[in-house]
Amino acid sequence: MRVFIAGVDGYLGWALAQHLTARGHTVAGNDVYLRRKWVEEMGSVSAMPVYSIDERLQAFKERHGVELIYREGDLLDYKFLRDFLADFQPDAIVHLAEMPSAPYSMIDQEHSVFTHTNNVIGSLNVLWAMKEVCPKAHLVKLGTMGEYGTPNIDIPEGFFEVEYRGRKDYLPFPRQPGSFYHLTKVHDSNNTVFACRMWGLSATDIMQGVVFGTHIDAMGDDPRLRTRLDFDQCFGTAVNRFCCQAVIGHPLTLYGVGHQTRGFLPLRDSIQCLTIAIENPAKPGEYRVFNQFEETYTIEELAYKVKEAAKDVGIDAEVLHFDNPRKEKEEHYYNPDRQHLIDLGYQPTHDVVAEMRVMLKDLMQHRDRIMEKRDILVPDIRWDGTRRRSQVIETTPAK
Amino acid sequence: MRVFIAGVDGYLGWALAQHLTARGHTVAGNDVYLRRKWVEEMGSVSAMPVYSIDERLQAFKERHGVELIYREGDLLDYKFLRDFLADFQPDAIVHLAEMPSAPYSMIDQEHSVFTHTNNVIGSLNVLWAMKEVCPKAHLVKLGTMGEYGTPNIDIPEGFFEVEYRGRKDYLPFPRQPGSFYHLTKVHDSNNTVFACRMWGLSATDIMQGVVFGTHIDAMGDDPRLRTRLDFDQCFGTAVNRFCCQAVIGHPLTLYGVGHQTRGFLPLRDSIQCLTIAIENPAKPGEYRVFNQFEETYTIEELAYKVKEAAKDVGIDAEVLHFDNPRKEKEEHYYNPDRQHLIDLGYQPTHDVVAEMRVMLKDLMQHRDRIMEKRDILVPDIRWDGTRRRSQVIETTPAK
Repeated sequence: MRVFIAGVDGYLGWALAQHLTARGHTVAGNDVYLRRKWVEEMGSVSAMPVYSIDERLQAFKERHGVELIYREGDLLDYKFLRDFLADFQPDAIVHLAEMPSAPYSMIDQEHSVFTHTNNVIGSLNVLWAMKEVCPKAHLVKLGTMGEYGTPNIDIPEGFFEVEYRGRKDYLPFPRQPGSFYHLTKVHDSNNTVFACRMWGLSATDIMQGVVFGTHIDAMGDDPRLRTRLDFDQCFGTAVNRFCCQAVIGHPLTLYGVGHQTRGFLPLRDSIQCLTIAIENPAKPGEYRVFNQFEETYTIEELAYKVKEAAKDVGIDAEVLHFDNPRKEKEEHYYNPDRQHLIDLGYQPTHDVVAEMRVMLKDLMQHRDRIMEKRDILVPDIRWDGTRRRSQVIETTPAK
Repeated sequence: MRVFIAGVDGYLGWALAQHLTARGHTVAGNDVYLRRKWVEEMGSVSAMPVYSIDERLQAFKERHGVELIYREGDLLDYKFLRDFLADFQPDAIVHLAEMPSAPYSMIDQEHSVFTHTNNVIGSLNVLWAMKEVCPKAHLVKLGTMGEYGTPNIDIPEGFFEVEYRGRKDYLPFPRQPGSFYHLTKVHDSNNTVFACRMWGLSATDIMQGVVFGTHIDAMGDDPRLRTRLDFDQCFGTAVNRFCCQAVIGHPLTLYGVGHQTRGFLPLRDSIQCLTIAIENPAKPGEYRVFNQFEETYTIEELAYKVKEAAKDVGIDAEVLHFDNPRKEKEEHYYNPDRQHLIDLGYQPTHDVVAEMRVMLKDLMQHRDRIMEKRDILVPDIRWDGTRRRSQVIETTPAK
């Protein structure tokens, strides 16, 4: 298949391009290195060194024997996007080019507006370009489990049967996103449903859990082919951040009581699932939703799993609770479905501690890079629009 | 009260400013005349002549004895907006500055992106500016009944009790908007819910039906104080368009079978309801939804009511069905609630035919202006992104 990856220089995009190429697909992609710039803006770096795009592309060709068809350019540049898609004529378009950080979107008016413009207009341009130049392509769009929030009922995959005042309908499941970033993902989901209904486009909207991990098999051992791994408060997701903290002896920073429950999955599972979605496309005119995660965990459970994995590799990690910079429920019901991907053959990695051990070993080689940025490991971006460094708090005794 | 109206030069804004001033409130507002430009872009004019802002402001002062506090500027100019709100310190902010046309948003990529930028970023700026300079103000935001679409179950006001797999929650009612314009209104509603929850802002989100009418009492007889009345395919809503068609002997253009059912309300009811919302503010941190319409009608019923009103004033109007340029259900269940405004004292105008007679008499004085634009009365903007003039179609015999 011919697969276009928007955001191919990113954490998932760079890994996916290699995995798909290794499976024999023809891959093209674009990027404008915004992730590199945002992490720099946060005063941080990727724990795993990221090579220049030219070095990456050269290594890609050496290992995989084919070139990644690459053009530098922004989804906000509609002509660039439409021309690239018209020339490449993809069977599938994987949209990984959104700004992915909740805290970044909450910093101030400017960051909140940027997040909306980048994500909503970029995604809208993808829909229009598909309509205009490749209407039969299948869109695999990256949403987030965070679109649903934490309702007090089970979370289906996108839609549910409603009975209300004696009548029935099959309707979109209500979304209760918890940040401006999550809101933009909901806006994009709504626009995508509409484009499928109006124009007969086909799309799979991936409600993905939080990804962690440094490695997939297709990368081999060439450092130029590794993907990035962020640990700052904006672009470092929970487990990735905990692992980086562990390798430099910094306490693992749990937010609040840590009983917030979310879906999580290792990087290799994310790439496996995206590949399943690509290779089993939605039907023409179909909009379908996949909830994509290995299992749900509380943040506290994960911190203690990182502590356990760290102990296995000779590191003694401490877990501390910090006052929560976010405004979110810390105790809640959480029971999302994830049957669609299982039905298509997804085999979840159940040994997440083993996955964490791999990460810790990878990261120990880059201790100095993380140590140099140790001052940015405690969050200060708060959901009320202020900046204040979180403090250690007392909670009920840890497990 | 001190009331700020964003979009004060528009159809509703100009009428509301006068009504509120007549009731003793202090009114400020902004505009950048986009509505004037869009209608010109459509090759049309307002049927009721619209005076320059300077002439309007002068007449306002003459009639109402006070100045409308006015600044020219765009909600997309965040500094302009924040400074104006900081200086004026409103008790209420009425947001009427969105691009309000479904067909306009569907023209092409450029118009679709413009609609998103103008509406979503403009509204986001309002939320941020409130947070920063007037967090205690009450936002009265204009949404649309079209946010809900046409589900096969009753439509509550914003939220509903859900029972699902044996558990219960009180959740946002699913939205199924039918154009990119309607989608932007959903995006804005979602952002507003969030801002209330996170920052303690208070808001009333008005899910308004389709407004028609030329006049409210506060305007008196001064032509400089009348509001605009559009009849082109983008900015002319159903009844307004039918009345303009009737006065020049053009057939009333029903789309499809005409059984699409919507909530409608006369201009004087819209102004009455907005005033009720302003004078009975939401509580701090509260986000509430008002469904705002006089009654639900099929488009066909309204066309025949216009025909009846036209007959009363000596005009013989013909109703014709045209192939529907929109993609929408033409037969569907529709039963929305509208209790909240009634509970606060809203008294619906039930004699809509009388309202139409007033409109027709007003419009007959401007026959020539409409006649000059008679070529633009049949729609050509289609929901599949093409342009093709609708043709007369055969349907089952009319009532």
